[in-house]
Amino acid sequence: MSEPAVTTPAEAPADGGRRRARGGADARRALRRGGPIQQLKYIVRKIPNYEVLTTESLEIIEANADTVLEEVGIDFRGDEEILQLWRDAGADVKGERIHFPRGLCRKLVMDHAPKTFTQYGRNPERTVEIGGKATVFAPVYGPPFVRDQDGGRRYGTIADFQNFVKLAYMTPAMHHSGGTVCEPVDVPVNKRHLDMVYAHLKYSDKPIMGSVTAPERAEDTVAMLKIVFGDDFVENNTVCTSLINANSPMVWDETMLGALKVYARHNQAVITTPFILSGAMSPCTVAGTMTQTLAEALCGMATAQLVRRGAPVILGSFASSMSMQSGAPTFGTPEPALVLYGMGALARRLGVPFRSGGSLCGSKAADAQAAYESAQTLIPTLLGGVNFVLHSAGWLEGGLVSSYEKFVMDTDQLGMMQTMAQGIDMSENGQAMDAIREVGPGKHFLGCAHTQANFETAFYRSSIADNNSFEQWLAEGEQDATKRANTLFKKMLADYEAPALDPGLDEALNEYMTRRKAEMPDAFA
Amino acid sequence: MSEPAVTTPAEAPADGGRRRARGGADARRALRRGGPIQQLKYIVRKIPNYEVLTTESLEIIEANADTVLEEVGIDFRGDEEILQLWRDAGADVKGERIHFPRGLCRKLVMDHAPKTFTQYGRNPERTVEIGGKATVFAPVYGPPFVRDQDGGRRYGTIADFQNFVKLAYMTPAMHHSGGTVCEPVDVPVNKRHLDMVYAHLKYSDKPIMGSVTAPERAEDTVAMLKIVFGDDFVENNTVCTSLINANSPMVWDETMLGALKVYARHNQAVITTPFILSGAMSPCTVAGTMTQTLAEALCGMATAQLVRRGAPVILGSFASSMSMQSGAPTFGTPEPALVLYGMGALARRLGVPFRSGGSLCGSKAADAQAAYESAQTLIPTLLGGVNFVLHSAGWLEGGLVSSYEKFVMDTDQLGMMQTMAQGIDMSENGQAMDAIREVGPGKHFLGCAHTQANFETAFYRSSIADNNSFEQWLAEGEQDATKRANTLFKKMLADYEAPALDPGLDEALNEYMTRRKAEMPDAFA
Repeated sequence: MSEPAVTTPAEAPADGGRRRARGGADARRALRRGGPIQQLKYIVRKIPNYEVLTTESLEIIEANADTVLEEVGIDFRGDEEILQLWRDAGADVKGERIHFPRGLCRKLVMDHAPKTFTQYGRNPERTVEIGGKATVFAPVYGPPFVRDQDGGRRYGTIADFQNFVKLAYMTPAMHHSGGTVCEPVDVPVNKRHLDMVYAHLKYSDKPIMGSVTAPERAEDTVAMLKIVFGDDFVENNTVCTSLINANSPMVWDETMLGALKVYARHNQAVITTPFILSGAMSPCTVAGTMTQTLAEALCGMATAQLVRRGAPVILGSFASSMSMQSGAPTFGTPEPALVLYGMGALARRLGVPFRSGGSLCGSKAADAQAAYESAQTLIPTLLGGVNFVLHSAGWLEGGLVSSYEKFVMDTDQLGMMQTMAQGIDMSENGQAMDAIREVGPGKHFLGCAHTQANFETAFYRSSIADNNSFEQWLAEGEQDATKRANTLFKKMLADYEAPALDPGLDEALNEYMTRRKAEMPDAFA
Repeated sequence: MSEPAVTTPAEAPADGGRRRARGGADARRALRRGGPIQQLKYIVRKIPNYEVLTTESLEIIEANADTVLEEVGIDFRGDEEILQLWRDAGADVKGERIHFPRGLCRKLVMDHAPKTFTQYGRNPERTVEIGGKATVFAPVYGPPFVRDQDGGRRYGTIADFQNFVKLAYMTPAMHHSGGTVCEPVDVPVNKRHLDMVYAHLKYSDKPIMGSVTAPERAEDTVAMLKIVFGDDFVENNTVCTSLINANSPMVWDETMLGALKVYARHNQAVITTPFILSGAMSPCTVAGTMTQTLAEALCGMATAQLVRRGAPVILGSFASSMSMQSGAPTFGTPEPALVLYGMGALARRLGVPFRSGGSLCGSKAADAQAAYESAQTLIPTLLGGVNFVLHSAGWLEGGLVSSYEKFVMDTDQLGMMQTMAQGIDMSENGQAMDAIREVGPGKHFLGCAHTQANFETAFYRSSIADNNSFEQWLAEGEQDATKRANTLFKKMLADYEAPALDPGLDEALNEYMTRRKAEMPDAFA
């Protein structure tokens, strides 16, 4: 197995697309001439990270995580190949439980995992960096239901899936097309990954996530990406980032390990994420949840390194608090924010990209609860230095629902975060001393030269907020933000224009899907 | 004029009430035995402040502010006494415009203004520290209108005023009773300050703000506080914090200067706040707005020091962005948050308490827009190290409206911020290694000893969020957060019980009000 040519930011070609082996060149050139949407590049944060813990405290948690890995151990279920890889690496394997010598997982990750990597989009303008000072927003992932004000809550379909891909494509501050933006339950469960990957490649040109629900579905994802990017390019670069969840506490299961192996072997990125409801799947304290998250993520990332040295990995952390009344996960509370800030620091110390946060909420409706909770997650996401932000828009009801209205409300917040990340302009124009001198006491700045020169770009312009007068708002029917979002998402879908896709590529993708579907009977469970 | 005995935290008596000269002792003893509400002490932040600017950038803004004070100058209108104080201090006074020698304002503030001070509540348990690591939440201030779902938007009355005082009193994470929680427009404009101060003293026992709309109204405030706290106590301690707004750009007007003088002379605190709509009242850049804010606040605080050396002052910053469409102020956008973070750092460098932030929004309804915008203001408020937080609950529609529903939605967020401020528990119990050892891979933590011992206090419990199942929420009528807030505020008002107030004090306050009202004809404009 050769060392992968993971492209670090310093080496990234200005036009990643030139490396592509076949197809789509004309289409990509057309796109570079510019479409109707002014897409934003991924964020490069110019503001500092917010740190809540001292170095001493972080060291305690790292030592505790090593104790968990050594003394308690982690179960790796149903994968003899991985158990053997760990025996060969010097771990103590008893049945399916692995006890790791102190420092072994950390050493594997620090020695081999890239600090940052490039994930290519089929449009090179959409290529993203993952790690370092970069922040990449990706949509909601996983909900079986969708919701809008017109149809209420219902099971997701492939049409809904395509809609969310289109909305993400049309959102300038959404840098990634994501993965399971909703479950298309009208498509057989063993075939829907094909339609999902196709939808991302057809209706968007942003980078995508792959299927993880079975190793052969991961292989299908890679095969379809090879049609678009070329075999050699895929094996030596990263064109797919996929979500590998631990089965907390302290279990990696057969399905996730199978998908992890496929992606790591093909040099595709995996986000090893303990998905934790604190108090049930981890201790009910912040430091305890951090310790367990670090232990689980560390051995997951190290496993990827055993499969292929240098495979791109992301340290994932997803921790919710819990309702005492219902046992349900709760979001937007202080405890998950503290976990996020702390885990960000641990990821930076380890030297790997960090995934956490998003616009999480427990609310059933896209209401004030949803907004407070989402903002209480998204702001820590930015300030905590998250590199890959899953669920950055559309998440509702603890992840059971992809909400159309919430999607466009959240993306407005993403735009704000992108502006916020640029920090304070301290140029001469930013200091604006000429303006203050020109205007002087008791006058106003509206007409001065500096204001006229800067007004258009001075302030973030919200796509959802109503800042008209009360009287005008009244005359327009007292619409709340959710109602305005309902109007906006429908307008966006009506205005949608697909990015160019080479007809030859499209045909090849469809041929692949048709063949693969014909090989399998339908399955719905 | 003698030096005031401003109490610093290190010197603060455990029972500030023992210093009080007369009245209310029995009532206060009764209160100390505990009422039905478990009030929270003001926040002492254990988390770091978030810093967006380098020292070098902060020094540039300080130098620019000095340039504004020296070259451009500030107008001090209609107050010959203050102009003379500045002539005597060495400033260059031309008409009403004062040009300050570089560093003079800063020196006056750094030499004399206390870094932190104690503001006493009539219940000593409610006494707060203002400055340093303390954060104090106070309600919305100033709206002429009120709004609830039942009655819609309407002018505020003294009954509304009393209601908001009651709600603030009943909110554990609201540490201060505030000031003009709404304008009681049914009371003559020249007399309503008496009813407002009385309402704070009667319906709450938390610290209060005073009237600033005329010097004699400030004197009435002090006189009523002397009835409660005693003459000597008031002259040597701080029992009142009042809001003195600059008339930006670069103007202090006669009314505000008159009130400032009264409060400073009596050793009562003033918050000198440039209230700025960026682009109209300051340059449309963050650094320019910071520069002007610092210049205006500096000369305001320095003026208080000329009136009385050591008078407690707070550096205030209120900056909104502007809608390009309507010219209206906008909130929850990145630019005001950046101003807040930067101004917090400048206040700390100057060594004075800092006021900014709150739960600000431009929304007309207590909806998702209101919630996003408020959270985008409140989180920077906490992380930016704000010491005195006006408008921390209830603010709607750019400050035109005090909203009942938003008040109780916001106070839930205040509780979260109070928990967040405690940071991560790194004790042995917080580290929870015993729990991880006890449970092990593949089990759950719900029943383990550590969870049982910590569950009650492990997670912040929201007063507004619905975390029940979708089915239960459906069965309960699909109530959104605003509807639940409507139910909650009405229950709170129904459950309200007034804190004890010594009947002799109450009588004396009423006698004073009656006498003062008899001395003035009614005025409504």
